[in-house]
Amino acid sequence: MQVVDRYLEQYEVGEVRRTLGRTITEADVVLHAGQTGDFFPHHMDERWCVEEAGLAGRIAHGTLIVSVAVGMTAGDVNPQAMSYGYDRIRFVKPVFLGDTITVEAEIVEVTDHPRRSELGRVDERVTVTNQHGDTVLSLVHLYVVNKLVNKRGEHV
Amino acid sequence: MQVVDRYLEQYEVGEVRRTLGRTITEADVVLHAGQTGDFFPHHMDERWCVEEAGLAGRIAHGTLIVSVAVGMTAGDVNPQAMSYGYDRIRFVKPVFLGDTITVEAEIVEVTDHPRRSELGRVDERVTVTNQHGDTVLSLVHLYVVNKLVNKRGEHV
Amino acid sequence: MQVVDRYLEQYEVGEVRRTLGRTITEADVVLHAGQTGDFFPHHMDERWCVEEAGLAGRIAHGTLIVSVAVGMTAGDVNPQAMSYGYDRIRFVKPVFLGDTITVEAEIVEVTDHPRRSELGRVDERVTVTNQHGDTVLSLVHLYVVNKLVNKRGEHV
Amino acid sequence: MQVVDRYLEQYEVGEVRRTLGRTITEADVVLHAGQTGDFFPHHMDERWCVEEAGLAGRIAHGTLIVSVAVGMTAGDVNPQAMSYGYDRIRFVKPVFLGDTITVEAEIVEVTDHPRRSELGRVDERVTVTNQHGDTVLSLVHLYVVNKLVNKRGEHV
Amino acid sequence: MQVVDRYLEQYEVGEVRRTLGRTITEADVVLHAGQTGDFFPHHMDERWCVEEAGLAGRIAHGTLIVSVAVGMTAGDVNPQAMSYGYDRIRFVKPVFLGDTITVEAEIVEVTDHPRRSELGRVDERVTVTNQHGDTVLSLVHLYVVNKLVNKRGEHV
Amino acid sequence: MQVVDRYLEQYEVGEVRRTLGRTITEADVVLHAGQTGDFFPHHMDERWCVEEAGLAGRIAHGTLIVSVAVGMTAGDVNPQAMSYGYDRIRFVKPVFLGDTITVEAEIVEVTDHPRRSELGRVDERVTVTNQHGDTVLSLVHLYVVNKLVNKRGEHV
Repeated sequence: MQVVDRYLEQYEVGEVRRTLGRTITEADVVLHAGQTGDFFPHHMDERWCVEEAGLAGRIAHGTLIVSVAVGMTAGDVNPQAMSYGYDRIRFVKPVFLGDTITVEAEIVEVTDHPRRSELGRVDERVTVTNQHGDTVLSLVHLYVVNKLVNKRGEHV
Repeated sequence: MQVVDRYLEQYEVGEVRRTLGRTITEADVVLHAGQTGDFFPHHMDERWCVEEAGLAGRIAHGTLIVSVAVGMTAGDVNPQAMSYGYDRIRFVKPVFLGDTITVEAEIVEVTDHPRRSELGRVDERVTVTNQHGDTVLSLVHLYVVNKLVNKRGEHV
Repeated sequence: MQVVDRYLEQYEVGEVRRTLGRTITEADVVLHAGQTGDFFPHHMDERWCVEEAGLAGRIAHGTLIVSVAVGMTAGDVNPQAMSYGYDRIRFVKPVFLGDTITVEAEIVEVTDHPRRSELGRVDERVTVTNQHGDTVLSLVHLYVVNKLVNKRGEHV
Repeated sequence: MQVVDRYLEQYEVGEVRRTLGRTITEADVVLHAGQTGDFFPHHMDERWCVEEAGLAGRIAHGTLIVSVAVGMTAGDVNPQAMSYGYDRIRFVKPVFLGDTITVEAEIVEVTDHPRRSELGRVDERVTVTNQHGDTVLSLVHLYVVNKLVNKRGEHV
Repeated sequence: MQVVDRYLEQYEVGEVRRTLGRTITEADVVLHAGQTGDFFPHHMDERWCVEEAGLAGRIAHGTLIVSVAVGMTAGDVNPQAMSYGYDRIRFVKPVFLGDTITVEAEIVEVTDHPRRSELGRVDERVTVTNQHGDTVLSLVHLYVVNKLVNKRGEHV
Repeated sequence: MQVVDRYLEQYEVGEVRRTLGRTITEADVVLHAGQTGDFFPHHMDERWCVEEAGLAGRIAHGTLIVSVAVGMTAGDVNPQAMSYGYDRIRFVKPVFLGDTITVEAEIVEVTDHPRRSELGRVDERVTVTNQHGDTVLSLVHLYVVNKLVNKRGEHV
């Protein structure tokens, strides 16, 4: 992890990052239940999942996969960008304990800020895939980013 | 936690739930960094936050607050509803270590499913407030819910 | 979780609550060893359990099952009641990693406090069952509870 | 930690063990809430404790103190003894985050098993004290222990 | 755990301690990744380990095995000794999730301190073995220890 | 985190990497005690540290600082290099709860492997500094690295 300044003009639509994989473990799910207080049987009760819900086994919390996937895309620290939210988070398929996910992040939009000329917005689509190649989660990560022109004194 | 069947017709726009409070601790942030792999200095480096970033101290991960807030609204298990995503997650203000959050969840929309007549959709706006009464996070939690009429055999 | 005032007169012998299930995982046992410092081979050494102790595998700490079972019965916050202890905790059968437990809590006694007329005592028997229907743990949870008559000004 | 065989005849009433101290931290309480699912505001909501409950701050879960105290007394592994329960667990005073506890364990009773002549019972009173010298918790830990005479062939 | 004073003259070359076993679990590895921020695929990605790296499965972090092994040898608290480092830490074989390790610690050198006559040095070789009897890790643990003669007033 | 092939010829003595900072928290120490089973009062008993040991407060485990420091230097995954051990780990000063550490890693030696001509060794000195600029830990991290010449077919 390092600090790298990157300004709006340096983001390009279509740019793609891909992460290595991560196996979602029983321990991850236990820790996430403990962190969130969500002990729903979908995540915590193997018997219920198999015998009553007709699932192949326990499934990970949606917020666990969101958290891990966003964390996996956290690369360099960019002091010029600030994450301000997510749009269109969709749980496409369940993630079972033992599944291995990988994440792809693609810049899908770079625009001016609607009201502040020294800023812009970058939208990055985050797509999470399991070991079978199925998409399990998608979301759009939203950033506000300083423009490079700032440093040249035109706006600041 | 208990299992309570609740059908689309039993949700009403304007219905509000409010949780008790929860203090976001240093331990929560350490555990969330460990779960996500996001060790950005905003969350992990007290010296950097205060001396370089001009913050009052370390701040919680956005995904931690999303995860805890959604977890705090997890009440009864409803076999007739399925969470399928979130919309418009916005980080309004930072949550500092030691802040105490409460969550309000309000049903803001109940509609038919666009293509499947036996289903409907419920949108619940989740608003997270700190101990000063400031909103720190908002999002819309999306559910697909079975219609009651199912059980009477008209659609199924 | 919500705050619900409940006074002594509102508890009745024979009242029963039943929880959903929870699978006791390897992660739970590892975390409990870490919390308590109890790294006895019964919980931490798979080889020893199977080859030397003649067990089917590692077993959960007794205090883990007590803690989880009591936690699973924590429902509404009742400001009129205070937990002051447990009686007759008995480990009836071992809980193995991967077992799924459910808990039943039954009010078995409601009495006046021996010395303070504005208070009473509620005893709740907590019984923990595994996925085979075997009782693995039982205990009696002890509460001191305010009488309703307080509010009417007769005692307070 | 080592394996030491100790038979019933080798336990004596009045024998006392004393542990070193352990500070009960915020992290312990967060982890215990996560393990048990008990997120009551007494343990998790600093604002509520101080402003509404009139407490000096958050307090540890009763089951946390039981678990840690029993764990602190876990010394040698004795294959001749089996812990089968606890009696008279009483929460005498609250333990606040940051308090430091020590534990004293005293053998208070050594008796024959009521029905099996090759076994006996050992009762050990466990007393937990905070840094002010106040007792915060007491319980009696119950063991079934093999008699030494077994090895000499009289009973076995 | 107890406090036992032990002086340099009371350590002898050849003295050996052996621990009980401990199974290295998936939860241990997940927690260690979370503590260190090392999410390398060797530890976290089951698919990569098996399909790309030709391993039998995920392997534990080297620093996890060092930490656990040293922790397993932490017996009595000796106020006369201070651990000041380790030499020649070597990862001889990988430790896989589910392996059970035991540790042997042998005093291999007791010498005077090169510059301070009231102190000496004790070197303890720590050897970690898996359930197949293979050495997986070795290191030398270094202590500075007070001499007994101190107490008799000759040096102090 | 990404996969980057780097061969022996591409390492140079004097090359330096510096990490961002990380605050060592009470939660880190609690989790490390839980992972290792080392509950020595130096790490766990605030009262003992201050009143009996004359310390400013609890101090982090040596193995915690080793683990975190090595983890902080884990950057790209290099399939051509394998970490095989550490030399000369020295605990120079204690790390207190709340201290913020940074790590510097410098290549101090690049040599041929003594017996295998297709391999070499890289030694990296890891130096850990606290927020006052004091060195608290140093060690040498040892790698075996493939030579580039391998790929050209001269050795392989």
